[in-house]
Amino acid sequence: MADNRAVSYMGPGKVEVRDIDYPTFELKDGPGVNPANVGRKLPHAAILKVVTTNICGSDQHMVRGRTTAPEGLVLGHEITGEVIETGPGVEFIKVGDLCSVPFNIACGRCRNCKERKTGICENVNPDRPGSAYGYVDMGGWVGGQAEYVVVPYADWNLLKFPDKDQAMEKILDLTMLSDIFPTGFHGAVTAGVGVGSTVYVAGAGPVGLAAAASAQLLGAAVVIVGDMNTQRLEQARSFGCETIDLSDGEPADQIEQILGVGEVDCGIDAVGFEAKGHGHSGQEAPATVLNTLMDITAAGGALGIPGLYVTGDPGGVDEAAKKGSLSLSLGTGWAKSLSFTTGQCPVMKYHRGLMNAILHDRVQIAKAVNATTISLDEAPQGYADFDSGVAKKFVIDPHGSVAA
Amino acid sequence: MADNRAVSYMGPGKVEVRDIDYPTFELKDGPGVNPANVGRKLPHAAILKVVTTNICGSDQHMVRGRTTAPEGLVLGHEITGEVIETGPGVEFIKVGDLCSVPFNIACGRCRNCKERKTGICENVNPDRPGSAYGYVDMGGWVGGQAEYVVVPYADWNLLKFPDKDQAMEKILDLTMLSDIFPTGFHGAVTAGVGVGSTVYVAGAGPVGLAAAASAQLLGAAVVIVGDMNTQRLEQARSFGCETIDLSDGEPADQIEQILGVGEVDCGIDAVGFEAKGHGHSGQEAPATVLNTLMDITAAGGALGIPGLYVTGDPGGVDEAAKKGSLSLSLGTGWAKSLSFTTGQCPVMKYHRGLMNAILHDRVQIAKAVNATTISLDEAPQGYADFDSGVAKKFVIDPHGSVAA
Amino acid sequence: MADNRAVSYMGPGKVEVRDIDYPTFELKDGPGVNPANVGRKLPHAAILKVVTTNICGSDQHMVRGRTTAPEGLVLGHEITGEVIETGPGVEFIKVGDLCSVPFNIACGRCRNCKERKTGICENVNPDRPGSAYGYVDMGGWVGGQAEYVVVPYADWNLLKFPDKDQAMEKILDLTMLSDIFPTGFHGAVTAGVGVGSTVYVAGAGPVGLAAAASAQLLGAAVVIVGDMNTQRLEQARSFGCETIDLSDGEPADQIEQILGVGEVDCGIDAVGFEAKGHGHSGQEAPATVLNTLMDITAAGGALGIPGLYVTGDPGGVDEAAKKGSLSLSLGTGWAKSLSFTTGQCPVMKYHRGLMNAILHDRVQIAKAVNATTISLDEAPQGYADFDSGVAKKFVIDPHGSVAA
Amino acid sequence: MADNRAVSYMGPGKVEVRDIDYPTFELKDGPGVNPANVGRKLPHAAILKVVTTNICGSDQHMVRGRTTAPEGLVLGHEITGEVIETGPGVEFIKVGDLCSVPFNIACGRCRNCKERKTGICENVNPDRPGSAYGYVDMGGWVGGQAEYVVVPYADWNLLKFPDKDQAMEKILDLTMLSDIFPTGFHGAVTAGVGVGSTVYVAGAGPVGLAAAASAQLLGAAVVIVGDMNTQRLEQARSFGCETIDLSDGEPADQIEQILGVGEVDCGIDAVGFEAKGHGHSGQEAPATVLNTLMDITAAGGALGIPGLYVTGDPGGVDEAAKKGSLSLSLGTGWAKSLSFTTGQCPVMKYHRGLMNAILHDRVQIAKAVNATTISLDEAPQGYADFDSGVAKKFVIDPHGSVAA
Repeated sequence: MADNRAVSYMGPGKVEVRDIDYPTFELKDGPGVNPANVGRKLPHAAILKVVTTNICGSDQHMVRGRTTAPEGLVLGHEITGEVIETGPGVEFIKVGDLCSVPFNIACGRCRNCKERKTGICENVNPDRPGSAYGYVDMGGWVGGQAEYVVVPYADWNLLKFPDKDQAMEKILDLTMLSDIFPTGFHGAVTAGVGVGSTVYVAGAGPVGLAAAASAQLLGAAVVIVGDMNTQRLEQARSFGCETIDLSDGEPADQIEQILGVGEVDCGIDAVGFEAKGHGHSGQEAPATVLNTLMDITAAGGALGIPGLYVTGDPGGVDEAAKKGSLSLSLGTGWAKSLSFTTGQCPVMKYHRGLMNAILHDRVQIAKAVNATTISLDEAPQGYADFDSGVAKKFVIDPHGSVAA
Repeated sequence: MADNRAVSYMGPGKVEVRDIDYPTFELKDGPGVNPANVGRKLPHAAILKVVTTNICGSDQHMVRGRTTAPEGLVLGHEITGEVIETGPGVEFIKVGDLCSVPFNIACGRCRNCKERKTGICENVNPDRPGSAYGYVDMGGWVGGQAEYVVVPYADWNLLKFPDKDQAMEKILDLTMLSDIFPTGFHGAVTAGVGVGSTVYVAGAGPVGLAAAASAQLLGAAVVIVGDMNTQRLEQARSFGCETIDLSDGEPADQIEQILGVGEVDCGIDAVGFEAKGHGHSGQEAPATVLNTLMDITAAGGALGIPGLYVTGDPGGVDEAAKKGSLSLSLGTGWAKSLSFTTGQCPVMKYHRGLMNAILHDRVQIAKAVNATTISLDEAPQGYADFDSGVAKKFVIDPHGSVAA
Repeated sequence: MADNRAVSYMGPGKVEVRDIDYPTFELKDGPGVNPANVGRKLPHAAILKVVTTNICGSDQHMVRGRTTAPEGLVLGHEITGEVIETGPGVEFIKVGDLCSVPFNIACGRCRNCKERKTGICENVNPDRPGSAYGYVDMGGWVGGQAEYVVVPYADWNLLKFPDKDQAMEKILDLTMLSDIFPTGFHGAVTAGVGVGSTVYVAGAGPVGLAAAASAQLLGAAVVIVGDMNTQRLEQARSFGCETIDLSDGEPADQIEQILGVGEVDCGIDAVGFEAKGHGHSGQEAPATVLNTLMDITAAGGALGIPGLYVTGDPGGVDEAAKKGSLSLSLGTGWAKSLSFTTGQCPVMKYHRGLMNAILHDRVQIAKAVNATTISLDEAPQGYADFDSGVAKKFVIDPHGSVAA
Repeated sequence: MADNRAVSYMGPGKVEVRDIDYPTFELKDGPGVNPANVGRKLPHAAILKVVTTNICGSDQHMVRGRTTAPEGLVLGHEITGEVIETGPGVEFIKVGDLCSVPFNIACGRCRNCKERKTGICENVNPDRPGSAYGYVDMGGWVGGQAEYVVVPYADWNLLKFPDKDQAMEKILDLTMLSDIFPTGFHGAVTAGVGVGSTVYVAGAGPVGLAAAASAQLLGAAVVIVGDMNTQRLEQARSFGCETIDLSDGEPADQIEQILGVGEVDCGIDAVGFEAKGHGHSGQEAPATVLNTLMDITAAGGALGIPGLYVTGDPGGVDEAAKKGSLSLSLGTGWAKSLSFTTGQCPVMKYHRGLMNAILHDRVQIAKAVNATTISLDEAPQGYADFDSGVAKKFVIDPHGSVAA
């Protein structure tokens, strides 16, 4: 029996559970590890027994072969776990602590971390600011869809749950703190959602649903979710969202039927670069979502853009898309004085407040995204199911802790 | 039969319904009208048939004889009504519109109004920035606990409800937009309440309850309300607040029993200068609330202070109180880096969003404050009952519109 | 002798001074007046004797024939003047007041105005939110490059200078309050400029220079201005900016030579849709500026975009440009977590503070933009000179008030 | 010859330079060290050769015997130095780095540090949030008015100057980054100072002067400084401030003579609890400054309160003062909707931007506060001179580095 097992990317469309090394306080060479990070010492790290680790839509980009991810890359950046060992530089986090791990790895020592911009930490990815576990071109930190994982800068990164038993009771909610709940929340916050806002969320995948639930938590009056997947729209309706089916045409008219006007205060792009055109053809059309959002967001509004846009996409529909260029009707946005916020969510800015909201029953995020537990060995099937568009958020339970 | 009837202050403890003039587009002389305002032309005004008008805790200060309010002063600054006539300078508000009237009168033309600080408008009160209907030393604008009332600068001040029938169905909620809902909300916002916050609200009167409901709407994890009135505490519990009875002693210990720590993130003073000491004696002790809030608000927190503090209080317990001086342990606040926000709520900053939250069923403010409809003739009894501490918010219905 | 004379657009490349009607308290039909605005009564207006009125880069778009502006359109949205008559609805502005007129016309009564978003007022342009004097598709308000002009909603829009004599001494500075100083300042503010920031301003025209001076006023450590016009770069250096000549290639390297790193904290687009490619060819390339700004703005930064982008541009270089579509490398921005703010500057948010900074000698904006006074009859030559790229901001002095 | 020498408090009015231990990577027992901190391991620390270390007004409170500071306490929390040794947990700070040390010690791992509230770090002072070097009741971290000092959590706390030679040329400016420049700046920021503001600074000591220079840097139109010390007022005038001499009476009238109105937009309390009454008597009157600021700050304004207020003051003028209670006219503030911000400045929020402003010659803070270099042995005389009210900021130069 191996010391550690993990979900690995083995080529386009191919995901396997494989034996990997048990983590140590050093970042060793391996698939996707940036040469400048090889041999990096991690006295500040903690080793976690993974309690839950979720499959994310952004993992799909790699699995579909839309990136340069190398074979053997260990996947997984949505991690919750129990600390089982700490390095000599760890002072406040203790063995036994049950913690949420923000998907963006941050050092807690650079200018950006000091300014709460932990999504663009300067010290963890030799190529550019910003990093994540188990992701291509992000420095090579080993993914967490595994039994065990190492978390660097543990005192800085980890959010300890105050009470372990209470936390295990809500673990399917708390597991969303590592990524999609803060990510959706960031989308809502940067879209300017406040008490009484009307909101349109493009995309009813897990991030879109999390954005919708976040908008409700922030006091939005009406949250409308648009998608072409009827199951996912059904899921959005299950917790009080209005929905529009984009197969039926452009959203402005449908929004008008709901609100009486064809515009909302706040627009959230929870789709990103793999967007499809509306209507029945459904061809990939990467600028569709943003152009639509500019159309249907009222003058003075804001667009939160948690959906991922990339600098290069070998699988893009045309030359422009391959370079990550989008044909945007910026004039429309300009005439309306819109503002736009892009980028990875700085998880640490939000996860404590959202944890408290979960622990005091102010939000049911697991229910909103339809959290569904699977074993580590079921992960490949989970990837396939998720890719087929089921309205589920898969939570891997490597040690059967949730089941127990 | 008179053209207009109104609730008037007739001396300490004495409130009567009397005949008064029907409003015109000029501010005429009368009890409490500032000489500099006499004869002021109001081509920008609208005359409203009052649909609802609420009794407010700050009216009580006058009725108790704690101010220099003159006999005959027409009371009432919480007004909702239907426009029945508009002056020649009114362009967008139309006859028939059903509207909420912000209690603070604002011109929409001075620097402060342009900066959204409508609570300190420079052009409506000759004595100082800031004004209100039916209130002592506020310029002399005639109160709205009446059948009819004139609202100056109607295009600026009035918030039109989008659908009249829908509005009448929720009129007991919407009537709270004129004052206590935005006021409580402002208290929560300036106390820094956000998603996941822990909040302590001092005072379970209508403003305290509105602040508590607002904190929930803003996503607070836990809202604790403190008072010595068991009925009002019961009311707070009815919509999910935790409560502490201050007759049982200082709040820090009781907060600790609820939260596990004796401090909250955010403190709201919904009491003001007529505060009473804790414990069984219950003597007036104007600095008690603020000193307690400094004690029980965690370092880095903020205090929202919607509760009224005055510059002079003839009925104060001692010489300092008579001058409006409070003995504050500012060192405690300083050591904790606390911040403090005082003053009238700028209603127009919040009322539209709160209206939308009401219309889309995101908040039940009427239920939270226990809105209770009475006729105009029952107003004096309403004042007496409110003063006795009943857990009710009295809504006067001068034309039987709500009853209908 | 005519009652009024004004600068009019008479076709591509053609500007003339013509006799026009003296303004009245009604918006009459004329070139470019929106039918829905014809006959609009303006009891809230003031008639101004124009003291100064500036030629703006956005006027050039019309004069170059890049818009659908009709022949006979009276130009001019940068207006400063003395009130000589007020409508019956004007209460606080008085005859004799010397005032700055914000270029964006606003009603002071709609939701957006109440939220300080006066650049997108809902009540002045029947076609969409937002308006301006003398501009195509903006409702048809008569331009102010004239002897006399009418300003609607005078109590709301006009900024009165506290002392007339003092103001006339600084009139070439104060005249910039109507547009380019707040517009440049808005660009700097929305780019996140603060004390110690490094800033890159794309474009050394008047708005770019105003943005640069604004960045300095906000405490920026280093302000770098890029352009291909050596005179304008010289002008930028005259008040302490660093400059880079884009004819010499891409800006990242040149920025690195100045700062030691090839990125700045804050990027400002003071060019807009008529951008030209860098290097010696200088072909029109509308996405160049924004793509460059994404390249050279550091992760976590912001882009302020006061430069105008349009929804349709008949003179665009290709089909995409004609529709106002830009090919943007949004992936670059997303990877860096950049944010973007577009739209007309809401002048009223800034003009009072900037006026105070001028009156107390904290900024020399006239000198920064090289304000150059001309007579009304010299206006056509001023347009031609400005179009040729001189480093001057032309200030029309219709009554010889400045000269005096 | 000793390994280390330092300025020590030896009783009321008594300061001596004494031999002390050379710092190590452990906090050892000594005068004023909190028992819970004794033996604390500091692998995350750096040992600095002190280049400059300033005498602060808050040191004076201890030296005057107004606190419970024990004999032998090593003084000094304003430290700039060169790293000569780093602990095993230090990763990014290197031997040879020349750095500014924020006076508030922070762990970079607690909730407050993560929220940028480093003035109330939870992990460095066993008694309460917040700590500082060489200060009574602040955990017992050894002061830096010494040849060598240890700085915990070096990667988090230290601000490295980008170029050592350039930094030594501006070292008298940069030395102000450890405390008074950010502290004054925080006062200005929390008072709401922006472009065009009018500002009153109470107190012309070094923090008051730093607040005044900060207000200018933030674009204030007029900065007025009030004090009763004519030398210090002269110093304020030397860099463009207006001044008022409080010996001549209440400030409202004097402000009116300067501004034309008796109120300012923003008020800063740079005095704190040892305030003296205005006029010729000059008796200690701890509430004077705050009550005056409420009087002379316009409605809607804000008060920044960097001046220290304490929870207990054995030397207070009366029983209330001894408990840290102030008799505040809060009603005045409430009527004006004022807000108040208290507490230690979170230095790390500001020091990088201010460093850049210094390095690019945007501010001359050393000149503004009249930085005056003295040797370590001259420190006792410096304390005496400072206490006598000279208009100087004393910078101790323990190794003759500045002199060189």
